[in-house]
Amino acid sequence: MEVELKEMLDDLQSLRQSLSDPTLRASIDKLQSRVDHLTHLAKSVPVRRSKVKDMSAEVVDSNPYSRLMALQRMGIVENYERIREFSVAIVGIGGVGSVAAEMLTRCGIGRLLLYDYDKVELANMNRLFFRPEQVGMTKTDAAVQTLSDINPDVVLESYTLNITTVQGFETFMSSLRNKTFCPSKEGSGVDLVLSCVDNYEARMVVNQACNELNQTWMESGVSEDAVSGHIQLLIPGETACFACAPPLVVASGVDERTLKREGVCAASLPTTMGVVAGLLVQNTLKFLLKFGHVSPYLGYSSLKDYFPTMAMKPNPQCSNAACLERQKEYILAKPARDAEAKAKMEAEASAATVDLPLHADNEWNISVVDDSVLESTGGTRSDALPEGLIHELPSADEFQKPPAFEALDTGIVDLEDLRRQLEALNAD
Amino acid sequence: MEVELKEMLDDLQSLRQSLSDPTLRASIDKLQSRVDHLTHLAKSVPVRRSKVKDMSAEVVDSNPYSRLMALQRMGIVENYERIREFSVAIVGIGGVGSVAAEMLTRCGIGRLLLYDYDKVELANMNRLFFRPEQVGMTKTDAAVQTLSDINPDVVLESYTLNITTVQGFETFMSSLRNKTFCPSKEGSGVDLVLSCVDNYEARMVVNQACNELNQTWMESGVSEDAVSGHIQLLIPGETACFACAPPLVVASGVDERTLKREGVCAASLPTTMGVVAGLLVQNTLKFLLKFGHVSPYLGYSSLKDYFPTMAMKPNPQCSNAACLERQKEYILAKPARDAEAKAKMEAEASAATVDLPLHADNEWNISVVDDSVLESTGGTRSDALPEGLIHELPSADEFQKPPAFEALDTGIVDLEDLRRQLEALNAD
Repeated sequence: MEVELKEMLDDLQSLRQSLSDPTLRASIDKLQSRVDHLTHLAKSVPVRRSKVKDMSAEVVDSNPYSRLMALQRMGIVENYERIREFSVAIVGIGGVGSVAAEMLTRCGIGRLLLYDYDKVELANMNRLFFRPEQVGMTKTDAAVQTLSDINPDVVLESYTLNITTVQGFETFMSSLRNKTFCPSKEGSGVDLVLSCVDNYEARMVVNQACNELNQTWMESGVSEDAVSGHIQLLIPGETACFACAPPLVVASGVDERTLKREGVCAASLPTTMGVVAGLLVQNTLKFLLKFGHVSPYLGYSSLKDYFPTMAMKPNPQCSNAACLERQKEYILAKPARDAEAKAKMEAEASAATVDLPLHADNEWNISVVDDSVLESTGGTRSDALPEGLIHELPSADEFQKPPAFEALDTGIVDLEDLRRQLEALNAD
Repeated sequence: MEVELKEMLDDLQSLRQSLSDPTLRASIDKLQSRVDHLTHLAKSVPVRRSKVKDMSAEVVDSNPYSRLMALQRMGIVENYERIREFSVAIVGIGGVGSVAAEMLTRCGIGRLLLYDYDKVELANMNRLFFRPEQVGMTKTDAAVQTLSDINPDVVLESYTLNITTVQGFETFMSSLRNKTFCPSKEGSGVDLVLSCVDNYEARMVVNQACNELNQTWMESGVSEDAVSGHIQLLIPGETACFACAPPLVVASGVDERTLKREGVCAASLPTTMGVVAGLLVQNTLKFLLKFGHVSPYLGYSSLKDYFPTMAMKPNPQCSNAACLERQKEYILAKPARDAEAKAKMEAEASAATVDLPLHADNEWNISVVDDSVLESTGGTRSDALPEGLIHELPSADEFQKPPAFEALDTGIVDLEDLRRQLEALNAD
């Protein structure tokens, strides 16, 4: 609209020059001031907040980061501002991916890479994020429009492409390798890849890329009946990759494209997708900012508010060659990992020996915990809340000991064991 | 802007009439067509979708309800379109309430009543929903603006008031009693109240209103350190009310207003608030549309992805007089409830006797389940997915039998028992 108004001003100017009558020239002046006013109106519609150089913890209404920086004072996160150094790639900007992108944008993530080839439709309006006036735009363009308005501090890169095509995969790989944002970073150019796609083929492509790049990623998904979903952490070589244990629908040899019939669509709900996006980004924050425990797998079954968890070891017979290479590397690096773990344990033990209690009798079990101890135990939250306040929920330890870590060990599905059992059965 | 453009067209028209030179008149014609084009542009900027008379299940890109109506075909919900008959009141349009309002709006809820007295600030931008250009607007006005753009089919009522003032409470009560939207409805004028406030005083006011009106409501909250939250179902007389077991911070006699110190604010995260809003609205949908199991209490402890659940009976010594009245009514209605439950069980038993298997040997345990049986068991999902598709997660029953229901029974905190134990201790 600003271009059209500028052209109109030019037209009025040339018309004015061809007129000699002062009354007519005055009319043109009036019209010119009207156009100026309209230009002002057109410009003032999208009020955007200005960029913020440093994240401040100052508690004023105008500070968009005060509630996030408060995580440090609350003892949850050691250094929140580090979030500005991280790059996260989100593949699939649909019902889960778009909400995940908005959450990370509002948290002030450094850089987001967005991948999708689809367009916004009215049929997407039953999920959060996209608005009816964006119908017809590509999802990547619409997302960049909304996200840059919300937080201009985030560096947004938009890739309107299909990663399952040869050309799309090449661009996907080179964008993940690009280290311009943080040249000193080890490994690839991103810190985490979030898969928010809705089909098996695209998941296998993300899996292939991450195995090749030795890139940690998180998988997410929502069921066709809209009432359950999951998130999963995949570390090449260390956990099962997506090809290690393919889902049954593919294992049974059915081509999923034939499943999408004319006039039939999957159900979806903003609630389930919002919960899955929230769990996904919460685990992303825990992974990047090193607090709490990152779930290897977390399911959400909404009909009974049931949240299953498990962990899967990699499959030594995996069909993915890059996965097998990462598995070998992981096994070869075991002595180094063991030595590191031993050194850490010894350092903790010697620290404990030095910290002898000042008073031998300690009826109330009072202990002074040093900040460095809190860090080394992986960001356990401090209970130092303002006087009179209590944590709303008891920490999980008080309910069920041992917590998630150990429950996971017993829940580990060893694919190698399963394979041996299967072979024994076949041998009969 | 349209007014200004119309004035400009009038100006051009009178200028044209005062000109005789055909070249000059042609210039004016050109300017007029430019203004027409600008008028068209100005009108097309806020593209709003038109209202939809009936929810259709037709699978076309232009249908905003196709993915929701698919819940019927998937066997999750019996009659999705009933959602248009329901009214939900949301008290507190902050980090949880605004997202809950957006989810219900996108689900096509009939009517939303929104209560808040606060204004949008940049400091709220670390949570979903509000945008920087809305800074300075009241949260209710900003919410109505966004929600009516997203779904014009929803009836929105906005109450910019503080329910903890005498005047505010009166308006709150009369708005809940108003039955204009659905005159035939039993009880109050709303089907559910969602409390999304951030302080004890406001929760006690919602509790008072709902006890007086015998109104079922749901409570939600997020901890000061931003990493945990909860939702709770409160049915006057049947479950503990908010005054039955006051939180420790209040029981210890600390005035929460003195806790909010200058320069100190609570931490908050879009992830935790998004998950709590998602769980809250998912349980709202289950409650209104009668599917799945509505959780009486569900916690979310994000550091370990731990989700505690419990149920609380009402306190016969509750300080809230209206709660005691509802408790009496609930006890008096017990014989009628028992008779109804017995009749239902007998009907199910006789239905089971009629359905003798056609074949006595049934090696694969195949059974034909009638739709009406599915309904009577409370919306158990049908496993009739399209060929080749499987449910992403096994149903909770396969993992842990018995499911949530029985675990809840053992977890019930009987306040009466606790009181007796306390009295016995005091008597020593």
